[in-house]
Amino acid sequence: MTKLVRQLNSQDADFSPALKKLLAFDAAEDEAIDLAAAKILADVKARGDQAVLEYTQKFDRLSKEQASSIKSLEITKTELFVALESLPKEQRAALEAAAARVKSYHERQKIESGCHSWDYADADGTRLGQKVTPLDRAGLYVPGGKAAYPSSVLMNAIPAKVAGVSEVIMVVPTPDGVRNPLVLAAAAVAGVDRAFTIGGAQAVGALAYGTETIPAVDKIVGPGNAYVAAAKRRVFGTVGIDMIAGPSEILVLCDGNTNPDWIAMDLFSQAEHDELAQSILLCPSQSFIDQVQASILKFLPEMPRQAVIKKSLQDRGAMILVKDMHEACEIANSIAAEHLEICADNPRQWAELIRHAGAIFMGPYTSESLGDYCAGPNHVLPTMRTSRFSSPLGVYDFIKRSSMIEVSETGAQKLGQIASTLAHGEGLQAHARAAELRLKK
Amino acid sequence: MTKLVRQLNSQDADFSPALKKLLAFDAAEDEAIDLAAAKILADVKARGDQAVLEYTQKFDRLSKEQASSIKSLEITKTELFVALESLPKEQRAALEAAAARVKSYHERQKIESGCHSWDYADADGTRLGQKVTPLDRAGLYVPGGKAAYPSSVLMNAIPAKVAGVSEVIMVVPTPDGVRNPLVLAAAAVAGVDRAFTIGGAQAVGALAYGTETIPAVDKIVGPGNAYVAAAKRRVFGTVGIDMIAGPSEILVLCDGNTNPDWIAMDLFSQAEHDELAQSILLCPSQSFIDQVQASILKFLPEMPRQAVIKKSLQDRGAMILVKDMHEACEIANSIAAEHLEICADNPRQWAELIRHAGAIFMGPYTSESLGDYCAGPNHVLPTMRTSRFSSPLGVYDFIKRSSMIEVSETGAQKLGQIASTLAHGEGLQAHARAAELRLKK
Repeated sequence: MTKLVRQLNSQDADFSPALKKLLAFDAAEDEAIDLAAAKILADVKARGDQAVLEYTQKFDRLSKEQASSIKSLEITKTELFVALESLPKEQRAALEAAAARVKSYHERQKIESGCHSWDYADADGTRLGQKVTPLDRAGLYVPGGKAAYPSSVLMNAIPAKVAGVSEVIMVVPTPDGVRNPLVLAAAAVAGVDRAFTIGGAQAVGALAYGTETIPAVDKIVGPGNAYVAAAKRRVFGTVGIDMIAGPSEILVLCDGNTNPDWIAMDLFSQAEHDELAQSILLCPSQSFIDQVQASILKFLPEMPRQAVIKKSLQDRGAMILVKDMHEACEIANSIAAEHLEICADNPRQWAELIRHAGAIFMGPYTSESLGDYCAGPNHVLPTMRTSRFSSPLGVYDFIKRSSMIEVSETGAQKLGQIASTLAHGEGLQAHARAAELRLKK
Repeated sequence: MTKLVRQLNSQDADFSPALKKLLAFDAAEDEAIDLAAAKILADVKARGDQAVLEYTQKFDRLSKEQASSIKSLEITKTELFVALESLPKEQRAALEAAAARVKSYHERQKIESGCHSWDYADADGTRLGQKVTPLDRAGLYVPGGKAAYPSSVLMNAIPAKVAGVSEVIMVVPTPDGVRNPLVLAAAAVAGVDRAFTIGGAQAVGALAYGTETIPAVDKIVGPGNAYVAAAKRRVFGTVGIDMIAGPSEILVLCDGNTNPDWIAMDLFSQAEHDELAQSILLCPSQSFIDQVQASILKFLPEMPRQAVIKKSLQDRGAMILVKDMHEACEIANSIAAEHLEICADNPRQWAELIRHAGAIFMGPYTSESLGDYCAGPNHVLPTMRTSRFSSPLGVYDFIKRSSMIEVSETGAQKLGQIASTLAHGEGLQAHARAAELRLKK
């Protein structure tokens, strides 16, 4: 039987190194790109608007008439709403329905994920707590050209607005002056406050340092090309950034009791993003794996993006025959995938065993693509095994905390003794004296 | 009158540029240090234990007998507790009292800051939520030599253990083989699971990649020298890291109704850390500022670290005369200090106006040094204006979230239509088909 996707067997002696090789991805930074980004950033920092304007004319192929000033590159709120009005009715309804669900989920997240201030007093009347404040301003980078995803505008902007960020500033390059109406419409729906048609490292620099026209933000989120990623790494510290995303990944755990066509299409929907995307199936049934291989061959010729899908599945995809679902969960934890689908009877029994995954899609009806657009949770998820230590983009990324400490006079007597002893132990005598001065004689 | 610390006046025409100049700090990365760190990391990745051993022998000046293997550099739990037993009674009691308060605060934080899983169902029976999981393993970098702070061991390890991290692995270099018993005792009290006497970029590499003897961790926290900072930046993505810390900062807002000696000593307690540390006082009373200047001159000769304090205050310190406390709060927001003391009647009225600060110390009895050691909140705080977008180290830094999505059959019908429309709009047909396959015919 013809098989497009390589198969591994967890019981093989060489499975462990084979899996390691399959997952290996060298996210090597390109030194030349990094230096080019650094140069652009320094220039934007020094020359502001004029530098951004020149790079925009050059890289986005805009004439001096098309880009006469940074002010002329601002898209007004009216223009955003005009783009929304211009959409076909069904598209507009879908965009608004998706936005409403994403907003509703993130409002729940704001409540559940500790995005509130709190405070308590100890027995001595000393009050301790934490004050939560939204960021003042967030910058949202949206890629231009063909890979412009309106869903990403919703997923990045809505959590910021739910968090209470006063001003969300979107930047989106418009190569050759072409604007994407779906992206502008999504910005209108998501509540983006200001938008500029700039991109690349120059847009990252403008958001990080501010220019005469573009205000400096406190955090920059959103995906971009290698120059954007390099620039974001460089401005980290001056502003906050989200994670640097790698290629998209899906891992499907299936007990074999579902429709193989559905699984094949779910593997496709990751593979079609990018030749470097990774789609893996873990399954204890060889016959089900064979059925999925057959479904893949059946559907592939129908897919407009079949070339990308084929290369991705052949180069980076895999079907892994496992001993049982318990072993599948163990392997899933070592893979720590961005998207994890559990297509199995009683999927929650297996979800409980999962420690590392960006998002867990449970049951046969939960295709990963529903999560990408409209289930509600964020589609910005940790890639490249970073779900071991990081989380989906969320409301919590747009707030920060300040510790609140108010020591009572009584408290200062006890705490002062402790602090004095420890400070002397560390050779920090002023620390000790500051505590001792508050002690009653 | 002699004044050690420069004075600015918020009403002067050149105040704004003068403040900007005062705050300017070039955290330029040293290219040579960065390259040296990169080379060490690559070597540790390739050669594991042997590379770590050779660097440790070289940089920490250990003989081949003192460092015969990485195994021989492990400090057993027994040795940690022996160090605790060896402390003078008062020191041990202070360490344990501080640890208990820090633990108690962070347990409260775990409850209040959304470190729990949650879940809800919509009208169609689709269940959405988020699963919270602690990190498997955290690495704690502790500097060796003179600037070894046992309080930092408590502040970094306790939130990890409260979060539920299974294994906290401490690394601490021991130049010339000298171990700091207070650091080892703090590790015992804080619940550190394993400890190795290694440091520098080689320790960061060992924790990030793992070696034959040292397990790879998921996140590395804790302060270090320039090589450690460069190495942490480089391994970010392979593992999580905490913020790269800049010099310490204190900003005191005082209405003039307190003891000037207390304020002077609080300014000292930041300045004594480092010649680059920054201590600033904002006050609407010129006579109070003059009193603090006098207190500074009075106390300075008594301080063992007077050379460091004097240089820090002269180079980077300032007294700023403000119009009123409202203006002081505005200026405080633009400074976004690591430590903010509000010494004023009814300090909370002013704290409400503060949007950006790592920690806010309220009232005359809350010296910053109490917060450093034992009030309870963490002393690892955002520096260099990063409190605009980041938070104190906390339990939330040692957990991560996975989105949980279980779409019902009914839900899949509505969501499938929306996803299909949006996916076609983005040119991602496999995404659309995956949703459409779940629609009832």
